[in-house]
Amino acid sequence: MPLDKIDLNSDVGESFGNYKLGMDEDVIPLISSANIACGFHAGDPAVMRRTIAIARENGVAIGAHPGFPDLIGFGRRNMDASLEEIKDYVTYQVGAIQAFALAQGMKLQHVKPHGALYTMAVQNPAIWDAVAEAIAALDQNLILFVLAGSTRSELSAIGAKHGIRIGFEFFGDRAYNPDGSLVSRKAPGAVIHDHEMVAEKVLKMVKDGKVVCIDGSEIDMAADTICVHGDNPSALALVKNIRETLMASGVEIAPAGDFL
Amino acid sequence: MPLDKIDLNSDVGESFGNYKLGMDEDVIPLISSANIACGFHAGDPAVMRRTIAIARENGVAIGAHPGFPDLIGFGRRNMDASLEEIKDYVTYQVGAIQAFALAQGMKLQHVKPHGALYTMAVQNPAIWDAVAEAIAALDQNLILFVLAGSTRSELSAIGAKHGIRIGFEFFGDRAYNPDGSLVSRKAPGAVIHDHEMVAEKVLKMVKDGKVVCIDGSEIDMAADTICVHGDNPSALALVKNIRETLMASGVEIAPAGDFL
Amino acid sequence: MPLDKIDLNSDVGESFGNYKLGMDEDVIPLISSANIACGFHAGDPAVMRRTIAIARENGVAIGAHPGFPDLIGFGRRNMDASLEEIKDYVTYQVGAIQAFALAQGMKLQHVKPHGALYTMAVQNPAIWDAVAEAIAALDQNLILFVLAGSTRSELSAIGAKHGIRIGFEFFGDRAYNPDGSLVSRKAPGAVIHDHEMVAEKVLKMVKDGKVVCIDGSEIDMAADTICVHGDNPSALALVKNIRETLMASGVEIAPAGDFL
Amino acid sequence: MPLDKIDLNSDVGESFGNYKLGMDEDVIPLISSANIACGFHAGDPAVMRRTIAIARENGVAIGAHPGFPDLIGFGRRNMDASLEEIKDYVTYQVGAIQAFALAQGMKLQHVKPHGALYTMAVQNPAIWDAVAEAIAALDQNLILFVLAGSTRSELSAIGAKHGIRIGFEFFGDRAYNPDGSLVSRKAPGAVIHDHEMVAEKVLKMVKDGKVVCIDGSEIDMAADTICVHGDNPSALALVKNIRETLMASGVEIAPAGDFL
Repeated sequence: MPLDKIDLNSDVGESFGNYKLGMDEDVIPLISSANIACGFHAGDPAVMRRTIAIARENGVAIGAHPGFPDLIGFGRRNMDASLEEIKDYVTYQVGAIQAFALAQGMKLQHVKPHGALYTMAVQNPAIWDAVAEAIAALDQNLILFVLAGSTRSELSAIGAKHGIRIGFEFFGDRAYNPDGSLVSRKAPGAVIHDHEMVAEKVLKMVKDGKVVCIDGSEIDMAADTICVHGDNPSALALVKNIRETLMASGVEIAPAGDFL
Repeated sequence: MPLDKIDLNSDVGESFGNYKLGMDEDVIPLISSANIACGFHAGDPAVMRRTIAIARENGVAIGAHPGFPDLIGFGRRNMDASLEEIKDYVTYQVGAIQAFALAQGMKLQHVKPHGALYTMAVQNPAIWDAVAEAIAALDQNLILFVLAGSTRSELSAIGAKHGIRIGFEFFGDRAYNPDGSLVSRKAPGAVIHDHEMVAEKVLKMVKDGKVVCIDGSEIDMAADTICVHGDNPSALALVKNIRETLMASGVEIAPAGDFL
Repeated sequence: MPLDKIDLNSDVGESFGNYKLGMDEDVIPLISSANIACGFHAGDPAVMRRTIAIARENGVAIGAHPGFPDLIGFGRRNMDASLEEIKDYVTYQVGAIQAFALAQGMKLQHVKPHGALYTMAVQNPAIWDAVAEAIAALDQNLILFVLAGSTRSELSAIGAKHGIRIGFEFFGDRAYNPDGSLVSRKAPGAVIHDHEMVAEKVLKMVKDGKVVCIDGSEIDMAADTICVHGDNPSALALVKNIRETLMASGVEIAPAGDFL
Repeated sequence: MPLDKIDLNSDVGESFGNYKLGMDEDVIPLISSANIACGFHAGDPAVMRRTIAIARENGVAIGAHPGFPDLIGFGRRNMDASLEEIKDYVTYQVGAIQAFALAQGMKLQHVKPHGALYTMAVQNPAIWDAVAEAIAALDQNLILFVLAGSTRSELSAIGAKHGIRIGFEFFGDRAYNPDGSLVSRKAPGAVIHDHEMVAEKVLKMVKDGKVVCIDGSEIDMAADTICVHGDNPSALALVKNIRETLMASGVEIAPAGDFL
């Protein structure tokens, strides 16, 4: 059954102090859900406030993008944090950004863990469970964004357990293994650079619920939101390409919270 | 008119990671309002969670104790931060601790700025105004704790402007100038070490609404909450002394939110 | 007496982790002394190593650019740190970058305090004295870069007291008061944007030992090094303009250590 | 061949800002080598300066105790840092403390990685190699402290490769596996709490070059330095016990640099 709506999400609000990162003003108008850094791996209080303002002006849903307390490593390095530490880090960061949202009359739609916290959760679902538990204690309307693919039923069960919705995320620019997992970034062909191929891949997932894997096999793939980037002009062009391809096919770009 | 209720507040939750500071388990049962550090000058996510749990078990009201982002200086050094930066820092920290409170079924009662942020606000009421604005945007039930003394009408006006309550704070262990301000810590006699004198001073403020200043003159002094410390056994003994002196005089120790 | 040599210095190595700041690869070949951030207000260990490598390849002298521990404020906010704290911060940062220099077979030429640490020292010479004391304990060949202008004899005395050389710094893009101090950035006309005017101003200082002040008066101005910037293409164009103007007038661009 | 000299080392200088940790004034006089934290996982510039002063007064050799940039986790959590990042972190921290040593007329004797950096190196000798490379570039007189036990020849080869001495470290309060490795802290019996047993174990290693393993078997064990702790009065009593036991047996307590 083809989807008639899909969400586009992007990591934004990653500037810090005097350091500017990303093209938030350009990418936010092109997406439907903004994952906003919360000050641990990137972002700072002023950046959080300003990023929410941009999302608000563009009618884009906002989410927390919590990460490890590793600014120098941009939250991309695995840290041997306990589940309790992870819950506390998520609670702290989500609370902080909820305050900025509230101060501008907004509510968070979703939470998407960043970098190593996300990839460690993909390897260890107990981390998804910990994050879900932390989120559910704050607002049961929050949607947890997780990787679509091989562990759908397990992740759905985690959502049900904590009474929150799960939003499955698809990467148009990443190769998939036949078991539905992502091909490791270290393997050749893991990242797809051709804009047309990415847009086609996204469209196939949306229209057919399928993805062609790195070995040529085709598997089922159901997702609610597509991860896109806004780091540079080429990335922006790709987002536009994806948007236009989807809209030309009659698919509406909408925040996950509108249809989940 | 003597007060029949007074609040006792103390700075707690100042441990960080492997570092333990203060005797929270001992002092929290003795007070009615806990000012909990929020991770900028002291405190961390786990400490915040655990400190709220202790307060909850003891039926003590909780508040945010936001400070400057200066962990190495414990938030005690003046920083030339703009009013906008201060608002953002307060929003971030109050939001973070609101989340931990919510996760334990509690709500914040109050906000008391820490260290240099407090003393800079005492010198520059525009900072009180900025803090009040930040707080009011998050929860108009929050009480802002400020220094009792010389600027009561101005501070009351700030509370009224933002629709929040102001809680005036008295220091039993500090000497006062005849204009109602605190004697600088650098001046001789600024800090009172004698426990009996502190307890008497507190009782006089509560019963008579007066304080004897450093020059021997007596001035009016109206306050809602008394600042006490829990850093060491002697400080704890002082808190017990204050409690007993007040209770023996028929004064109830109660969170400021109960009577403001 | 016209100078036949002058130093051009620029703040570099200000990137941090995933954050890139400045155009170091472009500006370093144009200068003779590189002020390298040391990880407190900007810079990190990897950036320090890489920046030294660029300077080394270009035969540019290197210096430490220590600042306050205020990454979020980029070291630009005054902090009420004690003289002892300042000495400790300078010792720590200079030691860290000395190690990276040594590992590449280089030695530091100079130390230039960054941002608020520099401007606070300009207001309070006790800070210059503290920085000089910290530096002298590490390497008496280090040159301390200070603001040229109104307090030359006092600063020379500080250098003599600690047995280190002082390098006086001139700002071609800043207006000067008749007493030799810089016009506050908050005042109109404080920053000169016209490239020709800046180059002329630099040349006049070098050739005539004079600067025309904001009120039109002309005063003596003796300096050893000119501060230039490498943040953007326009800044780079200005550096090239200054270089060419100086060289066309027979002035050699050389590290301060070569002629002081 | 019994040793006639042995080094006692302890982690010190772990306080930070307003946070005091450890009983440095008490333990330093009892040891011969002080491992001083360098500001990443613990310690700060002022603490580093003061700790060196205590060591200097007591004639105790000083070493750098570099760790991961994880203050909130006290450097005890594994971080997926690259070898290049590790080298840079070690260079930075060793350089910083070298400066404080130099300012007090001292030189570093050794470097001992802290916490997770140490235990990760034990698992992955490429980390020992990276640390050794970083150290050797700064001062070839520095001794690298590593875990005595199963990989002696490999670690000796790393020292030879970089031209630095290796100091093998023995833990009297930890159980050993028959292959010479430490029993994991998670296993029962991993940590020995009985003071007499610890002292006997140390003496046996020193006198006989043997250790009785957790399974009762006896293996060869050669080490140059014994790790002791100074966190609390009981730990101090243990250090005194070890000292007295060794001295009563004619073993001299001396810095590793005196005999390696």
